[in-house]
Formats: sequence, C-alpha cells, structure tokens
Amino acid sequence: MKRLLSAQSARALLVLASLAFVAHVFAQTDPLPSWNDGSAKRAIVEFVRVTTTEGSPGFVPPPERIATFDQDGTLWVEHPMYTQVIYCLDRVPALVKMRPELAKVEPFKTVLTGDLEAIAKLPTTELEKVLVATLTGMSVDTFSAEVKKWLAEAKNRRWKRPYTELTYQPMQEVLEYLHVNGYGTYIVTGGGQDFVRVYSARVYGVPPEQVVGTAVGTTFGYDKHGTPFLTKEPKLLLNDNDAGKPEGIHLMIGQRPRTAFGNSTGDQQMLEYTAAGDGARLMVLLLHDDATREYAYGPATGLPDTRVGTFSQALYDEAKKNGWTVISMKNDWKRVFPFDH
Amino acid sequence: MKRLLSAQSARALLVLASLAFVAHVFAQTDPLPSWNDGSAKRAIVEFVRVTTTEGSPGFVPPPERIATFDQDGTLWVEHPMYTQVIYCLDRVPALVKMRPELAKVEPFKTVLTGDLEAIAKLPTTELEKVLVATLTGMSVDTFSAEVKKWLAEAKNRRWKRPYTELTYQPMQEVLEYLHVNGYGTYIVTGGGQDFVRVYSARVYGVPPEQVVGTAVGTTFGYDKHGTPFLTKEPKLLLNDNDAGKPEGIHLMIGQRPRTAFGNSTGDQQMLEYTAAGDGARLMVLLLHDDATREYAYGPATGLPDTRVGTFSQALYDEAKKNGWTVISMKNDWKRVFPFDH
Repeated sequence: MKRLLSAQSARALLVLASLAFVAHVFAQTDPLPSWNDGSAKRAIVEFVRVTTTEGSPGFVPPPERIATFDQDGTLWVEHPMYTQVIYCLDRVPALVKMRPELAKVEPFKTVLTGDLEAIAKLPTTELEKVLVATLTGMSVDTFSAEVKKWLAEAKNRRWKRPYTELTYQPMQEVLEYLHVNGYGTYIVTGGGQDFVRVYSARVYGVPPEQVVGTAVGTTFGYDKHGTPFLTKEPKLLLNDNDAGKPEGIHLMIGQRPRTAFGNSTGDQQMLEYTAAGDGARLMVLLLHDDATREYAYGPATGLPDTRVGTFSQALYDEAKKNGWTVISMKNDWKRVFPFDH
Repeated sequence: MKRLLSAQSARALLVLASLAFVAHVFAQTDPLPSWNDGSAKRAIVEFVRVTTTEGSPGFVPPPERIATFDQDGTLWVEHPMYTQVIYCLDRVPALVKMRPELAKVEPFKTVLTGDLEAIAKLPTTELEKVLVATLTGMSVDTFSAEVKKWLAEAKNRRWKRPYTELTYQPMQEVLEYLHVNGYGTYIVTGGGQDFVRVYSARVYGVPPEQVVGTAVGTTFGYDKHGTPFLTKEPKLLLNDNDAGKPEGIHLMIGQRPRTAFGNSTGDQQMLEYTAAGDGARLMVLLLHDDATREYAYGPATGLPDTRVGTFSQALYDEAKKNGWTVISMKNDWKRVFPFDH
C-alpha cells in the first residue's frame, strides 16, 4: 500500500497548502464585496469562519460541508414569471408546427396569441399541460440542445439581456465564498432539474450533478441503429418544492445541508430540515424589497403573489422567531446584478 | 471582481501544481500494483492516459470525467447472497420483537428458523416482503444507525471478516487511480442507495452523494417536538438495475459516464449507454472465474446463477464483439482482497 499512502499524503499536503493559500488571499480581500456591512453579511462570514476553523466548536469536516440554494428568486430573478415557464411558452409555436391539431385546443390556442395578460390568467392545470408538452416526450439530448439554443437567443423584456445574466451578484459571491471554503454548493430548485443543469456550471459554477430539481422519469431505449438513448416521460419522480426539497436533498445528496438559502414558502421545509441538525447552521431568506433595482413582493409589500413563490408573513415570522438570517435586497446589497456598477 | 479573479487564479495554480505533483508520484510508482500486466490493466492505464493528456484527441475536460461502478460482484463479494439481503434477514428477529404477529407468517417464519437452504428457496416475491419490512417504515437516521451497527458486528461466514473488508483490492486501486486523475467516481448499484451510503466513504472513498442506487421515496414530517424528519416509505422511486442504471445515472448525475465497470446483465444498459457517447470510452466487465480465491460463476462455468446477478453468455459475447474489456479475476489480479498477501 506504499503507493496509495504516498499519493494520499501528497494530496493531504496539497489540500493543506491550498487552504492556507486561500486563507491568505481572503485575509487580504473582502469575499463579499457586493454586500453592505450588515447583520446578513456578518452572519454569513461568521458561519464560514466557525465551520471551517479547526478546533472551533462549530467546525465541520469538509465532506460534511453541504450548502443548498433555491434558484428562482434566490439566485436569479423570478418575476414576473419563472424563466422556465417563459421557455415553455416560447416553445409552443414549434410544438404546434409539429402537432398542428394543438393550435385550436386550449391552452395552446391562448399561448399562441402571445397575449401575456390572457396567458397569465390560465389556470395552473392548463399551464401544466404546456409544461408537460414542452418538457417531456423528447430525448434528453434533444431537450438540452433546445434549452441551450433558447438561452442563447431569448432576452428578458425589462433588462433586455439574456436570462442567464439576471443572477444576483451578491449570491454569486456567496456561492464562490462557500465553494473555496470547501462547501459543496448545490442548487435545490422547484424548477426542472434537466433545465437548470444545462447552464448551472457556466452561470453559477455549479456542476450538473450538484443540481437537484423537479424531475420526471426517463425511459431507456434504442434507436433504429441500436444506439441507446433516454426519453423524458410525463411521469413526475420528484416535485422539488416544499416537503419535496428535503426529500430531494436526501435522495440526491444523502446528507443534511449545513446552510440553506431560499426566498419563499417553497423553501420552508428545506430551511427547517437544515436547522434541525446539530452544530453550527445558517438558514437564510432573501426578502425582495427593492422595487427600484429589482422587485418588491411578499411581506415587504403585503401584496399577495400569484404565480411566483411567496415569501409569506408566516415564514417571515418563523425566520425571525428562530433567528434565521433575512437578507434585505434593498439594504444589504450594494449591487444586485453583475452588470450593475 | 478583483478578489474573485485572484482566488480563481490561485486555485488554478494550485490545481496545476497538484496535477504535476500527482503525475510525478505516478511516474515513479505503479498505480495498479495488484494487477498482473495484461490486456485489462493496459486498457485501464491507456484510457486514463488518453483522457487526461491535454492535446490528446481523447482528452476529456475534468468536469466531464465521470466513472461509474456497479457494487455487488464488481467492488465486493456478492456470493452466495448480496450483503444487503443478509442484512435484511439478520434484521428479522428484531422486527418480529416489535411486531410479534409476524412470527407466524411467511416469509418471516422461515427466516426465523435460520435454515439458509430453506431461506434460499423462498420465492422472490416473498423475499421482497422481508426487504420492504426491514428497509422501510423507519426514519432515515434510524436506518443509518441500524446499518452502521450491523456492519460493525456481522461477519462473512467464509472469510470470518466484516463484509466491508471483502472489497476487491484491484478495484480499490482503480477507484483511487481514477479519482487522483480527476474522475468523479460513482457507485451505481442495484443495492439500496441509503444502505451503501452508510459506508461508501469509509470503504471506497466514495462520498454519499456519489452513490446512486435503488431508492425508495421518503416523506417529510414533524415529530411531537416539531422537529422535522424523513421516513423511508415502501414506494420504489428508482429500481437501479438494467435500464434503471442509465436512468438513475441521468437522474442523479446528469452526465453520461466516460467509463463504467460492471459484472452482470444488470449492468448491460449502463455499459451500452457509456459506450454510445463520443470520444474515448472504457467499458469493463469483471468475470468471476476464480473458484479458489473467490468464486467461479457465470460464463466462466456455464452454471446458471439464481439469486445473484448473472454475467450471461450473451453479455460476454456482446463485450467481446464490441471490444469491451473483460477482467479475468483469476488471471488479471495478483491479489483479490486487501488482506491477501
């Protein structure tokens, strides 16, 4: 076993050296430059310090450093509609081209008009028909290629930029900060797992295998040349919202997170599950209270939300009662987007 | 963005340094010392060389280096019965203590006799009742604790050692060799995901999040103190055998493996799916042809297998036809177990 031991010792030394080096870099610079100095920033920095300082009572060994992040409304803009829903609506013309009989059938008929107000009024059950028709029934490779093409072309109407540029710069910094401190950073999203995996590495530095999301089953089969491929089926395997988030975390990661970030009632159970473990824990909720730079909704306004995840007054009260960290977008963030100056 | 760039450059430098260092270590020593010099060893070494040499036509960028390994019969002994099945049988007395009415009902009645021959004759549907009763219905934390306790006490009858010592030393070397060459090493097992995750890090150096296995659903709930917990439900989410292996790989990893190791028809689709991708690929089957040091079964003997996975003649022929690598345990391995000398 001499060889294995030497390689292991070598790697251990390198890990130590890299930790020392990273610590050195961080001692000189602010790891969260887009954050104002407030309780939220201090809570994040203190959590990292406590869990990564050997000998600290809150020290967490690297293999147990798991951090989970909701995506929509936590890492990027979710208003006025989830990006993936816009993708599905945008796919309808191509779908109708292949299946012309759909043009005269609801909800496709309404979606084809392009009348956003009418589309927004479609009942959820009708909207689900659009999701099923545009997210399943094709091979996983075809789906990835379609999403990639759409992301390269589609633009958000308000900012006139690709959707993948509408990530929150302060959260990008938190992802990076946790990553260099030995945390596995996972996206745990109600959005489609296959959808987010197309861009997670490029946009967030999170590899596909660290994306947990709502997932449908696939079916293995062979094409006419005998080449195997997987088809996305209209069969829900994991609804990664609410209680589905801790269930999905157990299924896909198998470890309880040490820290979790969310922004809506869909993240409540993930935050509670994270909080219920031993040792140092950090639970964070992002409050959308910045109508100027982004949007104000949820308890910041008292306005009810319809289609997007609600950060309810009850969740806000639970957070406050339990000492969870609430980020005020307006007060805690120096800038919101990477393109802000 | 100055800070992020410096940290990133620093990490890039460290990665380069570590790769150079590892390369140096490996240049001096044999990464697979328990392997005889034969076509199987050469195929593995050549695959690693081609896929990790920058500029080589087969070069694979590190994020795409995914390697998958079946467990039972590929990484550890599966004869005469899967270890997890032995665990389930061993749990029956404790189960009957809690639910005495089971003592008089089949299949529990037969299991309680301890008569291995009679137990081996139980129909699969009856055996499944034992699995459901011993693998579901408890919290995930209780289950993990029970498995951990059993692993510390139970011993294999032939070798009189804990089951976790019955791993194949040559395969441990392959796991380590791929890992230090930037591969994510995944276990993709027909066995229970929650079961294997209990010991995968300690036994194989594979962290729980890199174990894909047969998985049941869990249900999130609260105990009487309001603390959340997850209960294992008798609801199959993923049957990680046969076509379920590529389906599970897509669900849990989201990338096609570059190399896959298996030993039975349950691994056929995983191997085919791996082979169907572009670029350099390595598909490996382990042939159990060593009746002295381990067991001989499958095409090495012509004997049919009953309960354990079959490496059929058809799969053997497919491997030969497609140029997959077949390991002969008898001829390719200098030693089988870590405790062999």
